[in-house]
Amino acid sequence: MTELSYENDGVSDEAIGDPWGISDETRDALADRLGRARQSVIDGHSSGNLGFLGLPDANPSGLTAWAHRKREGRWTDAVVIGIGGSSLGTEAIFQSADSSQLDGLNLHFSSNIDPRSVDRLLDTVPLDTTLFIVVTKSGTTVETMSQFAIIFERLVDQLGSGRAAAQIIAVTSPDSGELRSLADRHGFESFDIPPNVGGRFSVLTPVGLVPLALAGYPIQELLDGAASMRDRFLERDPENNAILRAAGDIFSLYQRGMQELVLMNYADDLEGLGEWFRQLIGESLAKAENRRADTVHAGITPIAATGAVDQHSQVQLFMEGPDRRLVIFGGLDTFDADIEIPDHALPERLNHLAGHSLADVMDAERTATREALQEAGRPTAELMLPDLRPASIGAFVIFWESATAILGELLDIDAFNQPGVERGKRIAHEKLL
Amino acid sequence: MTELSYENDGVSDEAIGDPWGISDETRDALADRLGRARQSVIDGHSSGNLGFLGLPDANPSGLTAWAHRKREGRWTDAVVIGIGGSSLGTEAIFQSADSSQLDGLNLHFSSNIDPRSVDRLLDTVPLDTTLFIVVTKSGTTVETMSQFAIIFERLVDQLGSGRAAAQIIAVTSPDSGELRSLADRHGFESFDIPPNVGGRFSVLTPVGLVPLALAGYPIQELLDGAASMRDRFLERDPENNAILRAAGDIFSLYQRGMQELVLMNYADDLEGLGEWFRQLIGESLAKAENRRADTVHAGITPIAATGAVDQHSQVQLFMEGPDRRLVIFGGLDTFDADIEIPDHALPERLNHLAGHSLADVMDAERTATREALQEAGRPTAELMLPDLRPASIGAFVIFWESATAILGELLDIDAFNQPGVERGKRIAHEKLL
Repeated sequence: MTELSYENDGVSDEAIGDPWGISDETRDALADRLGRARQSVIDGHSSGNLGFLGLPDANPSGLTAWAHRKREGRWTDAVVIGIGGSSLGTEAIFQSADSSQLDGLNLHFSSNIDPRSVDRLLDTVPLDTTLFIVVTKSGTTVETMSQFAIIFERLVDQLGSGRAAAQIIAVTSPDSGELRSLADRHGFESFDIPPNVGGRFSVLTPVGLVPLALAGYPIQELLDGAASMRDRFLERDPENNAILRAAGDIFSLYQRGMQELVLMNYADDLEGLGEWFRQLIGESLAKAENRRADTVHAGITPIAATGAVDQHSQVQLFMEGPDRRLVIFGGLDTFDADIEIPDHALPERLNHLAGHSLADVMDAERTATREALQEAGRPTAELMLPDLRPASIGAFVIFWESATAILGELLDIDAFNQPGVERGKRIAHEKLL
Repeated sequence: MTELSYENDGVSDEAIGDPWGISDETRDALADRLGRARQSVIDGHSSGNLGFLGLPDANPSGLTAWAHRKREGRWTDAVVIGIGGSSLGTEAIFQSADSSQLDGLNLHFSSNIDPRSVDRLLDTVPLDTTLFIVVTKSGTTVETMSQFAIIFERLVDQLGSGRAAAQIIAVTSPDSGELRSLADRHGFESFDIPPNVGGRFSVLTPVGLVPLALAGYPIQELLDGAASMRDRFLERDPENNAILRAAGDIFSLYQRGMQELVLMNYADDLEGLGEWFRQLIGESLAKAENRRADTVHAGITPIAATGAVDQHSQVQLFMEGPDRRLVIFGGLDTFDADIEIPDHALPERLNHLAGHSLADVMDAERTATREALQEAGRPTAELMLPDLRPASIGAFVIFWESATAILGELLDIDAFNQPGVERGKRIAHEKLL
């Protein structure tokens, strides 16, 4: 199997010199620290405190069979009601899929409480043949439970309470929380979110797998790709370990003042995974305090961009604006469809495009934009996926989750909490009392 | 008519103190400079060098009548082929519209050269009843002209060259450029992009108006709202002038080290306008050199966020990460649909939500998140739109275009070019020779 590959020539001191270029000495000096960071993550994995690395080993055959029965039944649509980590990853993986990979229910997502969006959703889905998958670990997520209450009432009004309950699937904490209580009271089908996996690391739990299985997405392949990447992360030496190399580069540049991390994927269908990356990096690494309770205000501003489109939007900033970011270019080794550019109808000045395919042009634009940044002394790297198949997507998920965990160790912060959002939540509740 | 409103208590020194709080003295000291900046922009407008402020005065009745004839004819769909400023604004306005405002052709956008996306598009639209609107000022935009060549060949193969030419509409430079030559040669219908309006300021030219008119969007109302905002910008004194106040705040904070400008809109249908804002701020203000050719590497990193969704993704970073950004909260005074949260089926701990509407909750979350940032001493402001009607959207467009022009003056840079992207383009062409 072709692997996801990380290439970092564009951060070396040979390529870009001072102030960003990373020397072999710097890398060597960091190697031990990276090894220790990995060991901490492995220890968390072994002790069961840190659940995300074990998720790829789940056997999804029971879930797949369950989803198959639902798809054979009278259901036509499924709606994920969840926000943040309870939907971003699921939606991202769903968006990366080709329609040929999705032979199940029509899947929809309702994250926000924008009344226009909720109204449109309720106009779109056939209420009596739609499953509603309510995803919240605590069961007190305001946006999710508000939508649940509205939809459940409509179902009860229209179909009666027995049939309504059969259309709700709860994905929540196994033995506590408000949604668990509701599920017990009303008899909703339910799935557990493991307690040792946080929201933004949860896409390979039932949070993602239940909706994806209902949509017909091949979740076994997704998990296989994730397992294979996880094993490479656990086993390979640091110099040959894509995740440790990437985390090491990001950390080295951060120590020198790098503030923004751009992931610029040259593939439209990776846009959702860009949004997912943005949450993962943004929430995990931005912390007021380190583990010793020193005030540090750590954090990297994540930026998700799409090539070639954002060459016409963000690249001017990356080239000429303040020099404070690492741009990781992403792309696909292979597009499963490609189209050749014909020679007639091209303007004369573009005649050299004839005979190239669109994928060739994407490739040329990606490598050219990277070279231009490198000429300007700005750091770049490249993270290529073999393709958009589920195994590659699974590898991508584990790549960034593991890199984030390693960065948490290097920064000596807790990458798995989000204390900064509590104050706003409390004020909002007070306003609504 | 209710106006778009900008409220900036959250950047005052009373609200947030040092280091960000702006005192009355600072504002007074900047007032003259803001006045001069506005005068420069007005001079550019009067002399005809700067076209964007005159665009709202166009009479669109000819265009509207033309679009009406097309919509009455055999056409079902229209596809915008354009990238960056040639499509971002159009797509943004289109996305902000309610389906009830769109009684024309089905509008699609094809920006990227991702082969999967182009392939899907060609599978989706009925080739013989679709108009293709090719938008590029120079006619040498690689992404746009590659797609044009592919589509034109398919049309010619399938329908013959005469009928093929009748399905292409060129929006381009009036008297030069490669697309203009092709239009003349093949007899495409065409519309002019005024030479004194740059791509990212062009949404109120035929770049945006032609597709929007075909989709049935009320472009007269859009222009009216833009004209009204433009007049307020030109006429009102600086203290009472929303655009000058916002530009002054952004500039004052930038001088003190503010690096990121977040626009966090609490409305899903403003997402496209967030993308448009991102290009406008990113490309316009990031410049290696100022007008005196000093190396400055000016620039602000624009971040588009959507509330309440990004409270579960980016707010942890805004609250606890490095303190270097201004967050402007956006929202709607009125949602045209709203839904009440019923009292049964809510978890006990959320019972206080019952009886509130979704819009109430959005409001509470927006103001609460802002208050939490303010408590942490971080600068915030608020830019509210009355609603999502075309007049409000037109005002929003002029607000940010004018603020950007003012910021260009204050930074003493050329806000209307993008020299940094040329190097990458040249390298890409070399790779494809």
